[in-house]
Amino acid sequence: MEQKRILVVGLGLIGGSLAMALQGFEDFEVVGAVRSQSTYDKAAAKRAADRLTFDPAAELPGSDVVILCQDPAGIIAFLQEHRDRFKPGCLVWDVCGVKTAVMEAAKCLPEGVDFIGCHPMAGKEVSGIDNAEGGLFRNTHFIVTPGPRATKEHLDLLRRMAEHCRFGDVIVTTPERHDQMIAYTSQMMHVIAVSVCADEGLFSCKGFEGGSFRDCTRVAALDPAMWTQLFTLNAPALCRVVEDLEGRLRQYRQAIESGDREQLHSMLAHASDRKKHIDLERARGDDVRPSF
Amino acid sequence: MEQKRILVVGLGLIGGSLAMALQGFEDFEVVGAVRSQSTYDKAAAKRAADRLTFDPAAELPGSDVVILCQDPAGIIAFLQEHRDRFKPGCLVWDVCGVKTAVMEAAKCLPEGVDFIGCHPMAGKEVSGIDNAEGGLFRNTHFIVTPGPRATKEHLDLLRRMAEHCRFGDVIVTTPERHDQMIAYTSQMMHVIAVSVCADEGLFSCKGFEGGSFRDCTRVAALDPAMWTQLFTLNAPALCRVVEDLEGRLRQYRQAIESGDREQLHSMLAHASDRKKHIDLERARGDDVRPSF
Repeated sequence: MEQKRILVVGLGLIGGSLAMALQGFEDFEVVGAVRSQSTYDKAAAKRAADRLTFDPAAELPGSDVVILCQDPAGIIAFLQEHRDRFKPGCLVWDVCGVKTAVMEAAKCLPEGVDFIGCHPMAGKEVSGIDNAEGGLFRNTHFIVTPGPRATKEHLDLLRRMAEHCRFGDVIVTTPERHDQMIAYTSQMMHVIAVSVCADEGLFSCKGFEGGSFRDCTRVAALDPAMWTQLFTLNAPALCRVVEDLEGRLRQYRQAIESGDREQLHSMLAHASDRKKHIDLERARGDDVRPSF
Repeated sequence: MEQKRILVVGLGLIGGSLAMALQGFEDFEVVGAVRSQSTYDKAAAKRAADRLTFDPAAELPGSDVVILCQDPAGIIAFLQEHRDRFKPGCLVWDVCGVKTAVMEAAKCLPEGVDFIGCHPMAGKEVSGIDNAEGGLFRNTHFIVTPGPRATKEHLDLLRRMAEHCRFGDVIVTTPERHDQMIAYTSQMMHVIAVSVCADEGLFSCKGFEGGSFRDCTRVAALDPAMWTQLFTLNAPALCRVVEDLEGRLRQYRQAIESGDREQLHSMLAHASDRKKHIDLERARGDDVRPSF
């Protein structure tokens, strides 16, 4: 019997880290597909996969699991270009930060191919194989949006892979709910960070920054091409939460301007209590299914 | 000759940490003034000072350095109440996050008392003596706003204390410039964090939060009474930067809404480049005087 195979397409920060984290998973060989000689050399040097290839198409017919780790446009293009090369009965998943658009694109796959949308809530403000590490996913959320055809066998396989990668939990939800939630918890944080850093005063503030400034602006050092795609693919949900945020900032500003200390105190206490409460309650939310 | 004395008034997070960090500084005794029995017991248990007292007024005539670590209103009230008890020739400094209002209040001090406004850019999202630690200031900025009567001798003493506490550098600036800068680098970060946490959707987002969300909202768990004072005492500068931020958020939102990917990409690249640049250039700004 041939060895089972996981094909990781694209060895950037997430793909490279997944290939590293998945080595030794059950009886699977982990094959990493790269496009550039430079990524090949770096991936080989850090043993990012059991085997490397420049030709994912040739690997597809023999791959039991395919993990698509390109940028959003790359994932969508790959699904369309290679739709007929996937092994019947295989599991395909992706790591894209938006799910509705990717799930829609995956409809082009033939009936026997099971596509499950995934989003590892891990990342860094730096990208590429240079920064990949097998421990990247430790204690982070692994969000899964199964399509209507997802099999229990594949969901179980996915959970075992998530456990092997040391994710903190697996959250199962719909693509639509994922995209709504992520607009608020992740995309908006990036819009805030770039909006702060776009201030003309940025460079004159050196010497005056503390932990809160470093924390809030950390993700401003983002990859503009990838985040242009992510924002655009989730524009309605993202614009809604950013507009709401503008409104709340205005309310706080007006309370500060008004000089009404009692009102300002009560608004600050409200948010502070909520923050303390959610920290205490971490991991007891509706959609959270601590698995394994 | 009597032993020289540093009196730290108020052993909360900052005062307690300063009292701990300053122990062993040259030939000074560090005396901590507290108001509650509970703080006294905790400070005694962690040896937060060489000696503790409930009566700062009695210590003032024999104190060569007095450090005021109450909340802003407490500092201002203390200056007014005890103006005639300070030792002639002593150095008085405070740790308040706004400087113009405190420097104004310090004008009530008699001629021989040298008041220098200070702001240690260190903190945590938790407060009180329980969380105080001598290492809190390591590698943070120590901002100093000397008044017109500040002596070179006292500025040198202050630098030696800052070095003993392991601050990363000492930044000398005016109270007005401090308050402008801090509105942007610190106070606005707190307004952002509470504005994010005031969202109705906060509790339903559990399971979807990653590092950027935790980082951005960390400081939302603030002390409402203290931050009401800090925001109110710096209202014009703070409201200006928050209004500017609302405008930039709106610009990003409109670029996302418009579907003009080229424009969005260029706006994201602009902010991302600036963030990378300022990280590279850290500690080379106009006002930064790496001292010691």
